[in-house]
Amino acid sequence: MPQIFEHVGILGLGLMGGSLGLALRQNDLAGLVSGYDLDRRTLHRAEELGAIDLRFDTPEDAVVGCDLVVLAAPVLAVRELMRAIAPLLDDDATVMDLCGTKTQVMAWAQELLPVPANFVGAHPMAGSERSGIDAADAGLYRHQPWCLTPILPGSQTAFERAMTLVDALEPGTVSLVSPEEHDAAVASISHLPLLAATALTLTATTAPTWETASFLAAGGFRDTTRVASGNPRMARDVCLTNTQPILDSLDAYIATLQRLREAVASADMDLEGTFAEARRQRDWWLNAHPS
Amino acid sequence: MPQIFEHVGILGLGLMGGSLGLALRQNDLAGLVSGYDLDRRTLHRAEELGAIDLRFDTPEDAVVGCDLVVLAAPVLAVRELMRAIAPLLDDDATVMDLCGTKTQVMAWAQELLPVPANFVGAHPMAGSERSGIDAADAGLYRHQPWCLTPILPGSQTAFERAMTLVDALEPGTVSLVSPEEHDAAVASISHLPLLAATALTLTATTAPTWETASFLAAGGFRDTTRVASGNPRMARDVCLTNTQPILDSLDAYIATLQRLREAVASADMDLEGTFAEARRQRDWWLNAHPS
Repeated sequence: MPQIFEHVGILGLGLMGGSLGLALRQNDLAGLVSGYDLDRRTLHRAEELGAIDLRFDTPEDAVVGCDLVVLAAPVLAVRELMRAIAPLLDDDATVMDLCGTKTQVMAWAQELLPVPANFVGAHPMAGSERSGIDAADAGLYRHQPWCLTPILPGSQTAFERAMTLVDALEPGTVSLVSPEEHDAAVASISHLPLLAATALTLTATTAPTWETASFLAAGGFRDTTRVASGNPRMARDVCLTNTQPILDSLDAYIATLQRLREAVASADMDLEGTFAEARRQRDWWLNAHPS
Repeated sequence: MPQIFEHVGILGLGLMGGSLGLALRQNDLAGLVSGYDLDRRTLHRAEELGAIDLRFDTPEDAVVGCDLVVLAAPVLAVRELMRAIAPLLDDDATVMDLCGTKTQVMAWAQELLPVPANFVGAHPMAGSERSGIDAADAGLYRHQPWCLTPILPGSQTAFERAMTLVDALEPGTVSLVSPEEHDAAVASISHLPLLAATALTLTATTAPTWETASFLAAGGFRDTTRVASGNPRMARDVCLTNTQPILDSLDAYIATLQRLREAVASADMDLEGTFAEARRQRDWWLNAHPS
């Protein structure tokens, strides 16, 4: 594939930004990749691993001359990055983010960027319980779903460039939805699982039985809690920028758990039907959306 | 390894019993393996796959002459199996189960078996979201934790035979605990994850956003809900025979979720610390109990 960007700037070089840099460079998709990270060790390590060509000590320096800038930091940090780089962006530079929430990020783009229409919100559903530059992987995004939330009526060029980037990363499905629809959807299939796994870990490991249980816990416990091992700041920022959809999901979840609790307490033989229904729904999803 | 049993009878030939049969026969651990399953297709398929040497149409016929009988059915079915085979068991036949709850099973053994001391409760922590004979795998038990709950003062012979079987299956850790301690421990690391994953699946798939969300759901949702695809009857029976520990775990879980909800609703910046604590606890467990 020919180079699709002349100069890409990646701000934030953890798992997401580092993996993007590796994919761009290993597939020769960009003429030059500049990088910035608040953490100096991360910045040096990204250069060492070949995720970037050039490292910069400030976000401002890293975006000068870029035709594509990717904001790959936890949500709350993205606001500060936008504010910092706004005066330095080329007029036709496309700007993307990779955050897990979109409504707030799109509002900041409207407020802070010089040409908001050049911004395309993007959310690759390609997290991992591992985090940081050392977990970066050129194949992280391959066959994973992406969600794009362009600003409408946006710049056709920005949208086309974003799609070109996503296509080059060999995605699974690509969904175009509004920021609000995105945030409501991911509340139930991403943020709720994160909170459920975190609560499960905290509940099990503080139970009086944990000393014995820690020897018996195996694959089921490991997988059900996997996402609780992710980046804590990213998790916090997602919660703080998608509050109402998350509260709605949590309330629905707690209500479902209360119904299951009643069924257990009353020795309801129909519990088998409830478990069968969950299995049916999950297996339908697995078959409809293989990955 | 030489044969360690002359004649093993396996009652129930789903994932657990079928995998045991395959492991016994492929490693030549038993002179003869007899099998019974309520479902005739399962019974024939078990023979076809080589999980058993001989198939029987009744549990009674399948245990005649056995020096080891393994009850590998959902918990509530185990009671009926014990009642059925009791008159046919050899005086020195060791009897084991593979159920996910133990207090109730041990009480049934005391009540129904001719020589209760010959019974050893066993729980291999080696489930899978797949179920049934077609998912059987000779390596299912390898490197997985086992929990044994012998009846004390039990027959030393029965306990030694059970340990010999478990050892031959190349287990991870083997824990010896009381049935009550077992049930309290697995409530938090096995039954609670099952209910949490089931509730998560039901909540997400009935949310108004599911149509969009089903395209965005990826690895995190898949893993967090994995155990919801398991055998519904096994799940129900576990819930009905470990009621109080499960209710206690559910209550602690719901209380933890309520605390997280409050933190989200109040935009508590300390949420990062909560996520970090869950990660620390989970990573400690992963390091201490690699599998």
